[in-house]
Formats: sequence, C-alpha cells, structure tokens
Amino acid sequence: MPEREPDSTPPRRRSERARTAVLNATAALIEEVPYPRLTIEAIAARAGVGKQTIYRWWPSRGAIVFDSLLERSGGADASLPDSGDLQADLSAFLRASADEMASPSTGAFLRAVTVEILQDDGVAQQYRDRLLTPQRSAVRRRLAVSQDAGMLRDDLDLDVLVECLLGPLVGRWLLGPGPLEVDFADAVVDVALRGAIR
Amino acid sequence: MPEREPDSTPPRRRSERARTAVLNATAALIEEVPYPRLTIEAIAARAGVGKQTIYRWWPSRGAIVFDSLLERSGGADASLPDSGDLQADLSAFLRASADEMASPSTGAFLRAVTVEILQDDGVAQQYRDRLLTPQRSAVRRRLAVSQDAGMLRDDLDLDVLVECLLGPLVGRWLLGPGPLEVDFADAVVDVALRGAIR
Repeated sequence: MPEREPDSTPPRRRSERARTAVLNATAALIEEVPYPRLTIEAIAARAGVGKQTIYRWWPSRGAIVFDSLLERSGGADASLPDSGDLQADLSAFLRASADEMASPSTGAFLRAVTVEILQDDGVAQQYRDRLLTPQRSAVRRRLAVSQDAGMLRDDLDLDVLVECLLGPLVGRWLLGPGPLEVDFADAVVDVALRGAIR
Repeated sequence: MPEREPDSTPPRRRSERARTAVLNATAALIEEVPYPRLTIEAIAARAGVGKQTIYRWWPSRGAIVFDSLLERSGGADASLPDSGDLQADLSAFLRASADEMASPSTGAFLRAVTVEILQDDGVAQQYRDRLLTPQRSAVRRRLAVSQDAGMLRDDLDLDVLVECLLGPLVGRWLLGPGPLEVDFADAVVDVALRGAIR
C-alpha cells in the first residue's frame, strides 16, 4: 500500500468536501435507518468526520437534516405554468407535488424534516422561509392572474385558497387514509374551484 | 413519623393506580419539557413507578403518549349537529376543531403524537383507527345527509370532500403560515362548498 500523503488540499476546499460528506451521509442514513437512530454520532461516523466538525457548521441534527433536504430539492424554484386553463395548471402542479411526496425516498426525508419542524422552532422557521413560502407564493401568483382576469370570485382570500389546495395533500400525506395519487390531486382541485354545492 | 405500613391494596387496584400515574405523568411532562427529553426514564421518575412497570403495559414511548391523548380526549365520540344548514353545521365543527388544535396544551399533545405517528407505524395505525376515522366518519355522515337530499353534487366522492375540509386545518396547524382561527375555518368551509370559480 502506498504511504498516505499529507493532505495538501487548501483548507477551504477541505471544508467544502467535509460539508458535502456530512450532507450525503445524512441523506443516506435517512433512507436506511429509523429516524431516532439518526444521531450526530451516526452522521459523523458515516461521513468520516469528527463531531466537532459537524458542530462547527450546524447547531443541531435538525439543521443538518434541513440543509440536506434543501440540497436535494435544489432550492425552491417553484413556478406554475400559465396555459390559460387554471384547473389544468393547478392539477399539473398538485399531481407533481403528490407524486413527489408519495415517493419512498422523498417521503423518508419529509418525515424526518417534519419531526424536526415539530420539535425545533429554528427548523420550522427555515422551512417556512426557504421552501414553503416560495412554493405557496408560486401558486398564489397563478391564482392572482385568474382572479385579475375575473375568473375567480373577488371576495376570495387567495392565501386561504392556496391552503385549500395544498392542505389536503399535507393531511393525506401525514394521516391518510388513502394514497396520494393523481386522482386525489385532481379531485382536490375540482372541489376547491367548483365547490361541492349543486 | 409513622412507620410505613405494608401496601394492602389489592394488586388489581394497585395496577390501575400505577397506570393512571403513568398517564398523568406523561400528560404533565408533555406540557413541561421539550419532547426529546420526554423519555421512559423521565415518565417513570415522575410517576413514581419502575421502568419495568411501564414496559409491562406499553411497548414504547409512543404507545404511552397515545394512550395519554386518548384518555384526555375521552374517546372520540365525534358527531355533528344536523340543523338543516350544512354550511353552519360544518363551520361549527371546524371552528371547534381549530379552536382545540390551537390551544397551547392540546397543541403540545398533538405535536407529541404527530412525532410518534411519523416514526412509529403502530401509533399511526392506532391514531387512524381510534381517533381519525371516527372523526372523519362523523363529518362524512353529515355530508351524506345533504348529498342524499340533493344538495351536494352527485359526482362528488365524500371522502375527498372530508379531506378538503379537514386537510387545510391540518396543514395550517403543522406548517402555518397563519393562525388557526374561526375566520379560517369559515373560509375553508366556504371554498369547499361554494368553490372559487365565479
């Protein structure tokens, strides 16, 4: 075996490499182990770094998990198409969201982040600011185009309408009872737009 | 000080007393300490029982927390009024639900149970069977009366409509952005029944 050479990588790149190793280790562990076993120790061991290195960048497990989700989602560049057909545009967006939430690997990530949101106000705030708000704003902008064109009721609070569209997906993802499928996404859009009354 | 007498309580009543002590200790701790610090050890210490006593009845922390919620909620005897005015009946139910979810003490309980639902399939199943399904069935029954009377669209899947009513509350409770208030409950009922299209 060759003798191990001293690491001549500049400190900055070495840091970046360790950061990436930590996020990748976290992503791998989220899919592999029950979440209560995803400790800082387990992440450090998997990433091959010391615990001090981790605590230099992140204050908590929740912060690492959130950064790992952010890296994976590639930032929240949410925007909706505008085909002129509001129902079709919303269905496409909700179908894609349902599909992603229902995938096993994204599901494990979302469960992990949700556990942190429930227990760590810092993570909850980050999640709202960096993922949730951009996503909801994108839906709201699409709705505003239709409301300005006179297609939606004037008296409607668009923020509430956004929650009427996305809330049922969150509810079904978290609690069931049924699967998150395209039919469900379409049905939610149908109720939110047309209503239930005959 | 009097000498401590041997406990002459029959074993069955002693058991029941310990069970109640465990559930009360859990309820108190849920409101007092951050949830990660709510360990079986902490519950045992607060209840004044041994860990073995706890493990005799409950397989996990999640199971204790769920029983504690069940005890508190007094079982799920959910039923909706039928005043003949569907919108009013649904608003009353959703307002009461929002109110309860938004109260600090119930909120702490729901957060604890949700953390367990996300990590423990047994708790998730119990939650669905014993709390969620009875609640949703009650809403569904009220909707079915109106659908049978021809007031709701025939083509509507009532299970989906139930989720369109309750999902936005779950979503806002979990993620925000706004407060869970009566105005929000009313607005959700309005969208679900009348729709957004002009």
